[in-house]
Order: sequence, then structure tokens, then C-alpha cells
Amino acid sequence: VKLITAKRAGFCFGVKRAIDIAFDTAEKKKAGVYTLGPIIHNPQVVERLQTMGVRSVNSVRDLARKDPKAVIVRTHGVTENIMNSLSKNGHAVIDATCPFVKKAQHYAKLLKEEGYKIIILGDKEHPEVKGIMSYAGRGAVVVKDASEFPETKARVGVIVQTTQNVEKLKELLAVAVGHTKELKVYNTICNSTALRLKETEEMAQRADVMLIVGGKNSANTTQLARLCQSLGVATYHIETASEIKDAWFSRAATVGLTAGASTPDWIIKEVKKRIKDIGGRRTYGHPKGRYSKGRA
Amino acid sequence: VKLITAKRAGFCFGVKRAIDIAFDTAEKKKAGVYTLGPIIHNPQVVERLQTMGVRSVNSVRDLARKDPKAVIVRTHGVTENIMNSLSKNGHAVIDATCPFVKKAQHYAKLLKEEGYKIIILGDKEHPEVKGIMSYAGRGAVVVKDASEFPETKARVGVIVQTTQNVEKLKELLAVAVGHTKELKVYNTICNSTALRLKETEEMAQRADVMLIVGGKNSANTTQLARLCQSLGVATYHIETASEIKDAWFSRAATVGLTAGASTPDWIIKEVKKRIKDIGGRRTYGHPKGRYSKGRA
Repeated sequence: VKLITAKRAGFCFGVKRAIDIAFDTAEKKKAGVYTLGPIIHNPQVVERLQTMGVRSVNSVRDLARKDPKAVIVRTHGVTENIMNSLSKNGHAVIDATCPFVKKAQHYAKLLKEEGYKIIILGDKEHPEVKGIMSYAGRGAVVVKDASEFPETKARVGVIVQTTQNVEKLKELLAVAVGHTKELKVYNTICNSTALRLKETEEMAQRADVMLIVGGKNSANTTQLARLCQSLGVATYHIETASEIKDAWFSRAATVGLTAGASTPDWIIKEVKKRIKDIGGRRTYGHPKGRYSKGRA
Repeated sequence: VKLITAKRAGFCFGVKRAIDIAFDTAEKKKAGVYTLGPIIHNPQVVERLQTMGVRSVNSVRDLARKDPKAVIVRTHGVTENIMNSLSKNGHAVIDATCPFVKKAQHYAKLLKEEGYKIIILGDKEHPEVKGIMSYAGRGAVVVKDASEFPETKARVGVIVQTTQNVEKLKELLAVAVGHTKELKVYNTICNSTALRLKETEEMAQRADVMLIVGGKNSANTTQLARLCQSLGVATYHIETASEIKDAWFSRAATVGLTAGASTPDWIIKEVKKRIKDIGGRRTYGHPKGRYSKGRA
């Protein structure tokens, strides 16, 4: 089979930065390093960090019992309250919040100070959105799309979860501008997400099978898989190479491979190797078949 | 013929206010009252004011030669420079700028002070837009639609000519949000324009002939006429009843009548009377025709 791999598969800027911070801290401190929640939405990376002594805890209270040497705040960021509690409890905080998420938090605070009614476009259950929300204050509302835009005549300030689709933002603004006389929008969508989606869409139109690699708990990876499914191509969302089945490729000439922002290179490499192996076996089984050695 | 008249035909809030100001001033001062440019885009109103001693001049320089008792600034407003010159020259300025236009000027100044790259959606030749533009400062750009949105990475502030269509604003925002990370929008579109357009559209779908009454130099009246034409109904844009021809109604069962924001009641009344007369003659000529007395 011919394998095409997305240029933008895997770690984005913010995730790479956070993982570097985590491994650096692990090396320096040897032990007693904690993250508040898994550092990124990828179980395999979290496991590897565990072998280096970096543990994940679920709450500030859990931390207090452990007397940590360092507490890493993960890419999605945390609420203002949690950040304050960490300082108050005297922990050595290492902030690995994605700088783009940090910006969104900053703008939320700014809009609150300027008295805007704040609307956050995003998934209200996502930790990133919960963090931003805490800086936006009480009156803020999270909407999943334009249909949820609230009745308001107030001045409206809009912030967007960094991984949202820009088309959804455009739809939201079209509704917003009909409600309010003043609208301030911070387009906090991360370009990397948009470009990855675009590349994946183009790839899905050429491939017979799409492999999406990344955490099943990763929103942006799941979004890639859903996009491919919606385009009608056979799509498999896997976390590791071990999940791959030969049968998926029995009728495939071209396989497209992409990965979410929280998927490490080593997993992508393993998946590539596994597909080459399958391609090789198939070429061997059908020496006069359509698959040349060079393409597998 | 059955005549239906738009509820919102004629003077909007801002025009009514300006005309009241003009007639009041004329009565008080007896003579020496000037407007800078025609007070509204309706030649018949301007003529009637002339008979009361209110004259229109084209420039601040012309005013200086006349030693006026009062200078009325018209609904569209003027540039900041002109406003300053009028004060500096010691004229008694009576500001009849539409309060909604005044707001747009105020927001332009605000956005300039806040350092935004200002985009004005509107017609750059329209006096209202020229006035707003002057408060927006040097870097500001007027665009007639989304296709003219400039290449920029700056923080963008948007203001809208009060008589623009909200759909055009939505298109502009969809483009803008793809260019910039920060967008501040003052939706300065006047509701009265939107509602008048909507009512006219509904009327045009029921009528066989549409009569649009108002100044040929009135942008909002012309917009009404263009809307009706685009819907495929026979449309006549007239300034006065004297332009009406019997033949326009020879095949019409229903005539729709609407008027721009600068069209006075007395002209609308004359037009109504003229259509009733035509309807009456037709009923007389065809006693057993389809047109009952009651409907004409």
C-alpha cells in the first residue's frame, strides 16, 4: 500500500513545550513531580512520564497530602481558583499551560474588566474551557454553537476554545451581530488545529483508508476522525500500532495517516512501521499484484 | 385598484427630528438661517424650507460671506474639521445630525483612540460616511462589501453606515475574523432602515406594481426601489405625484406604496390621492369590472 503521512501529524507547539517541560523537570527533580490531571490527553505519554516518576493527581487536596517537589500545570490550563490555591499552598508551580490557552484566559479577564457579557464558543466540559471560564467570571456563558447564543442586549465579548473550527465562529458572529450593538471578538482559535484539519480533509479525499492516531480522550484527535468519517472514507481511530488489523487494508491502495496534537512521534513511527510490514507481506503474497516494493 | 401603504413609509426618527429643528429655527429667526448642504435628500422639503427663508450653502467658506443667524448641520452630519471650523468662525451651530449617526461618529473616535485599524462598511461617497470617516482618522478604510476587506493583521474595529444591510455586515465579519485576532464591532445599522426594507420586501411579493416615493438623490429610497426591482415586480421611483402615469396601473390589481426615510407625509398623501383618482376613473370606465369602489 502507498502510505501518505500528514506533515502536521502529532505534537503542536504547546504540547511539545509542555512535554519538554515535564521531561526536564523529571530529570532535575528525580522524584516528587506531579501534574494536576494528565499533562496531555494521551495515555501512552502519561505512562512514559510515570516511569520517570511524574505522577498525575486529580485535585489540589490530593497534592497537599503528597508534599511535592514540583507541580506541573498541564497544557489545557486550570481555573484561576486552582492556580491561586497552588501558590497559597506553597507549591513550586511549573506552568506548562499552552501559551495560546494562556492568551484566551488573559482576554477573558480583560473582557470581564471591560464589562462585557462574555460568550465562550467551545465544549463546556473541556478542561481548557473550564479554565478560561473561571477568568471570565460569573455572567459568562459557554455555547457549543450559534444556536445556543443567549438572549442579550448587553455588549458582548467572544472568546473561542483554541481547538474550535473557524466556520463555527463565523456562524456565531452572524447571530451575535443581530443581538447586540457592540461586539468584541478575540479569535483565539489556534492555527495549528485549523491547518491540521485542512490537511486531513485533503488527505481523506485521496486515501482509501484513514488512520487517525491519538488518545481516545483527545478532543482534537476525535475531531480529525469525525471529519474523515463525515467524508465517507473508511476511518480508524487508534491509540497505538497494536490495535491495527491487516484486514483494514485488504482493498486499500492508499492509506492516509495523521495524528492529533497530543500524539508523540514514537507512536506515529510505530504505526508507520506496522503499515510497512503489512504492505510488505501483501507484496510478498501477491508478487504480481499492483503494489510495488517502493510504495509500501 | 387596491392600494396598500407601508406602515413605515416616510420620515424616520432622525429625519423627523431634523425637519422639526429646521422649521422651528426658521420660525424663530425669520431669516438668515442656513443649512450646510441640503438638510435631507429630498428636493421638495428643501424647497419648502427655502420659502421660509432657510437656505442651503455648499461650504464653510460660502457661509462666512453670509453672516448667518444660525447654521443647521444636517442629518448626515459633517466632518470633524467642518464642525470645528463652524465653531471657530463664531457661527451659532444647531446640530441636527441624526443621533444614530452621531453615535457612529463617537464610536469611530473611540476606536481610533484605542488604536484599532478602522473599517467602515458603507458608500465612501455618502456624506454620512465622509463624516464618520473624519472621526476615524488617517488609517481608516471604507469598504462597500466583504470583498474589499484589506490585508491586515492589526486589531480591527468595524463601524457601519446606518443605512447598510445587516447581511452585508455578517459577510464582512466572516472575512474579518479570518484576518485578525481581535475584532471590535459597533453595529451602527439603524433598525428603522432594516424594518422598512423588510416591510417593502413583503409588500413587493403581494403587489403587481410598487411605487417608491422619495428623492432620486436619496440612497435609502433608491435602495428600496432596487430591492423591488430585484424581486421582479414593476417598480416606479417617483419624487412627487405629478410623475405618475395612468398606464402604469392598467393591469394592476394591487399597488404597493412605500417611501424613503426622507420623504415627507404631504408628498405621500398626494401620491395616495392621485392613485385613488386613477382607481376611481377606472371603476367608472368599467362599471362591471373587477375593481369595487371600496378598494380604490
